Amino acid sequence: MAKKPKFKITPIGGLGEIGKNMTLFELGGDGFLIDCGIMFPANDMHGVDYIIPDFRWLEERDDIKLHGICFTHGHEDHIGAISHVVKAFPKLPLYATPLTAGLLQVKLKNARLLKSTVVHTFKAGDRIQVGPFKLESFHVCHSIPDCVGFGINTPYGVVVHTGDYKFDNTPVHGRKTDYARLAGFAQRGVALLLADSTNSDKAGWTESEAVIDGALDRVFRKARGRIMVATFASLISRVQQVVNAARNHKRKVCITGYTMSEYAKIARKLGYLNIDDGMLVNIGQAQALPPHKVVFMVTGSQGEPAAVLGKLASGRHRQLDVREGDTIILSSHPIPGNEEMVYRTINRLIERGADVIYDAVEAVHVSGHACQEEMRLMLNLTQPRNLIPVHGEIRHLHQHAKLAIDNGIPAENVTVIGNGATVELDGRGVTVGERQPGGYVFVDGSGVGDVGRAVIRDREILAKDGFVLVSVNVDRKSGRLVEEPRIVSRGFVYLRDAEDFLDQIRDNVTKAVNRNGARLNGSRQSLVEESLGKLIYSETKRRPMIFSIVNEI
Amino acid sequence: MAKKPKFKITPIGGLGEIGKNMTLFELGGDGFLIDCGIMFPANDMHGVDYIIPDFRWLEERDDIKLHGICFTHGHEDHIGAISHVVKAFPKLPLYATPLTAGLLQVKLKNARLLKSTVVHTFKAGDRIQVGPFKLESFHVCHSIPDCVGFGINTPYGVVVHTGDYKFDNTPVHGRKTDYARLAGFAQRGVALLLADSTNSDKAGWTESEAVIDGALDRVFRKARGRIMVATFASLISRVQQVVNAARNHKRKVCITGYTMSEYAKIARKLGYLNIDDGMLVNIGQAQALPPHKVVFMVTGSQGEPAAVLGKLASGRHRQLDVREGDTIILSSHPIPGNEEMVYRTINRLIERGADVIYDAVEAVHVSGHACQEEMRLMLNLTQPRNLIPVHGEIRHLHQHAKLAIDNGIPAENVTVIGNGATVELDGRGVTVGERQPGGYVFVDGSGVGDVGRAVIRDREILAKDGFVLVSVNVDRKSGRLVEEPRIVSRGFVYLRDAEDFLDQIRDNVTKAVNRNGARLNGSRQSLVEESLGKLIYSETKRRPMIFSIVNEI
Repeated sequence: MAKKPKFKITPIGGLGEIGKNMTLFELGGDGFLIDCGIMFPANDMHGVDYIIPDFRWLEERDDIKLHGICFTHGHEDHIGAISHVVKAFPKLPLYATPLTAGLLQVKLKNARLLKSTVVHTFKAGDRIQVGPFKLESFHVCHSIPDCVGFGINTPYGVVVHTGDYKFDNTPVHGRKTDYARLAGFAQRGVALLLADSTNSDKAGWTESEAVIDGALDRVFRKARGRIMVATFASLISRVQQVVNAARNHKRKVCITGYTMSEYAKIARKLGYLNIDDGMLVNIGQAQALPPHKVVFMVTGSQGEPAAVLGKLASGRHRQLDVREGDTIILSSHPIPGNEEMVYRTINRLIERGADVIYDAVEAVHVSGHACQEEMRLMLNLTQPRNLIPVHGEIRHLHQHAKLAIDNGIPAENVTVIGNGATVELDGRGVTVGERQPGGYVFVDGSGVGDVGRAVIRDREILAKDGFVLVSVNVDRKSGRLVEEPRIVSRGFVYLRDAEDFLDQIRDNVTKAVNRNGARLNGSRQSLVEESLGKLIYSETKRRPMIFSIVNEI
Repeated sequence: MAKKPKFKITPIGGLGEIGKNMTLFELGGDGFLIDCGIMFPANDMHGVDYIIPDFRWLEERDDIKLHGICFTHGHEDHIGAISHVVKAFPKLPLYATPLTAGLLQVKLKNARLLKSTVVHTFKAGDRIQVGPFKLESFHVCHSIPDCVGFGINTPYGVVVHTGDYKFDNTPVHGRKTDYARLAGFAQRGVALLLADSTNSDKAGWTESEAVIDGALDRVFRKARGRIMVATFASLISRVQQVVNAARNHKRKVCITGYTMSEYAKIARKLGYLNIDDGMLVNIGQAQALPPHKVVFMVTGSQGEPAAVLGKLASGRHRQLDVREGDTIILSSHPIPGNEEMVYRTINRLIERGADVIYDAVEAVHVSGHACQEEMRLMLNLTQPRNLIPVHGEIRHLHQHAKLAIDNGIPAENVTVIGNGATVELDGRGVTVGERQPGGYVFVDGSGVGDVGRAVIRDREILAKDGFVLVSVNVDRKSGRLVEEPRIVSRGFVYLRDAEDFLDQIRDNVTKAVNRNGARLNGSRQSLVEESLGKLIYSETKRRPMIFSIVNEI
């Protein structure tokens, strides 16, 4: 008798966080994906625009038939890589709730992939059939409407994937996390829970989105001039809260920036953003209004210099400026690594005369993720036999695992894995199987994957100390210099102030060439570079990249 | 009758924070400094080792006689630039409490400036005479012992400078912030308060250092293997707390790293660190002990890759490694900008099997700075007529100013300034005077100030997209190429995988040269660079630096 196949789960790619951006589920020869998001580069990943999961190994696997991608919600880290994935798997159908589908369609349209891609829409709570797989979606609260998690029926019991979630009892759009469905899974027996770990080092409960209404009201009440609110374009619920505050305080709303406008448009069309036509104004109209009659919604809450807020901070926005009397609200929290840029942006806006309100000062932002008590509630509602903490860095998974063990799950039933590790579920439990190749892929300009570790390492060295290149023309026969060495250097020293040092470099190179004359041939280049490297280090204690070009003429 | 001179205050240099690292006080032709510290570079200040205040304008001012530097405490951001300042002002006496003096002497010794520098030691609470200036030091709590602030007697009343402070009622070394002296100043009339703003966006009170004792005890009680504690070398109080926990749990202490060992040595000698000889072991001895019998004190709590913890995380430490069962405590909080590196370090240590305890998980760190309620207490104790918020970014000063106004100081008596602005105090109050030149100076390798904005900008571009240099040899007469162009490139694309693209580049350059032949001369170089730049951008959407060297032969 053939062995019953195991149910396999593989978190794909991901930078820092595990099981966040893209996950493969397989049984026998069939499979499906949950989410396909992007990551943003760390500060030392120089020049990288964004990062996608490395799914090239999956393209090469002909032992598995993929039946679709199911989406939990419409944030970038869950849908952002869609165009890359659809190009690799052109006929793969997508399954998403209406708002998520709408945001996916914006991306597909921008990539000219809309017509060739099938997007199936389902409502939170619906059962969906993805090839041979039976999934049950359930609504969860987060910071965008229309979020779901999935219960996946397997021969070994239900596998529950929470997606990003929190238990908000007063959410902006009214609908709560689906307690009943989660409890229902428990009655049928949850073999395995994959659960969000983002806030596992934070005690208590995450505050409700509702507290933001009060904070916005306080800030709007005090503001005498214009108000600008920065947040992520995809935080549709937050946009709704700002619109509500604007309505209460008789201000019009101007939504700036391409992505934010597009997202607001689709959310309005689908009924997820409630704003009257009469309340919306464009930048020109907004500028003509009295300052206390307008709110601008802007992007750039993470300190990105190219977004609207970044341009306002540095005075480079073509249509808007920041003036004395403006109130600027950052309805956001810095993603780790962005703190410096966020605070720099805030400082610059204050220097320009604005009163800047951020989450340390007023409750203008709350997290979209469960804290420790909510994680306990999730465990107690679903009563899983096994837990794999996902969504978070290793330190978060580790903390979530401690919490689950403390909450009564046997330690051997809690499995912390990294991206690329396949876990296998059968009647006996969970085991860690083989490791898949690949991690993540850098996207830089139009290049996908052509910038790897070696290029990044070079950029790191160039960033630190720059480079020095000398070009020398030597006589083919005598091996002696026929003219002065030429020097090209950037990022090393300020050349205009370093004439003496440049003379030293020319001298050093001239001697290195002439000392050894014709005897050298091939090794002349490395000899020049070595001698120059020593001089430069002893004079400056720096190690720029050093190159030489030797022309024998 | 000659006008009575104003009392002038100028915060010098500083990156991000204002009035933190070095401040000039003048009256008539006399002056003195408080502190001379360093700053650490922001993530986009590539290759910079550290930053010192730019005091070159002060060296050039012959209208003022400097009488000394008074130090508030021994942290790097208050004493770290001492060797640079002493070189510029060789005969200037230093005034410091014993521990601060000891730490200064370590630095002066390393810079071979110890013998030529006079260091006057005073005790917290002492009155000190600095040239014509009468200062009264007062003890404050912070996270290093022997911290002071200063009351400066001026013709217009007392000017109080808090230094870094908090009101800790159960500090590690027993001595509290000097409430009596602060209240005493109020009785005489405080004309101006310069006060620490670091935590002005945090409500309530900063917790006492005493809570750390409890947290360390809990962690030590649970730990079965070795314990490693990372903190700043200069947090002498923290080292004492770890020593106390080790004593209670019968573990020996191994202090690793040059700076931490030096600082501990001087603190022990001066009686600020209480540890028996028998408790101290070196690394070799520590390795020979059973795991549950030793604590390692290590540097690297800010995620610095070259410090002990960074090396442990990446497995590059020559003598120590991290093993399953180790408990690692980060007794620290990430400085903004360091979060990414700190969390990466934590994740790597967990991957190596350690249990990592950091401030989000246990109260193993508290801030050394006052929170909002303490700021109110400081205002209420000293009852200043005027306030200049210092120590903090603009956003913190702004928040401190709001708090002070809310607390009853008239808005026109609260002055928020940036570094380099001189404020003037006279009988009528505080006015903002002229701006001094200069800001801060980068130290890179052995170079002080030779790396400026232009070099950093070049490093930024190199970091983003690298560079491409082509060298072509052309016939002097015909202007045509005599051999294939040579290409040097780094940080742009991975050259080994880009043979086709390199061919395209060679082709492009060949055509650009040959198309125009001998007609060009001087402009040949820019023509080649322009043509190449277009090709590269259209193919890759990147903008590396592009150079060409044209040899006419």
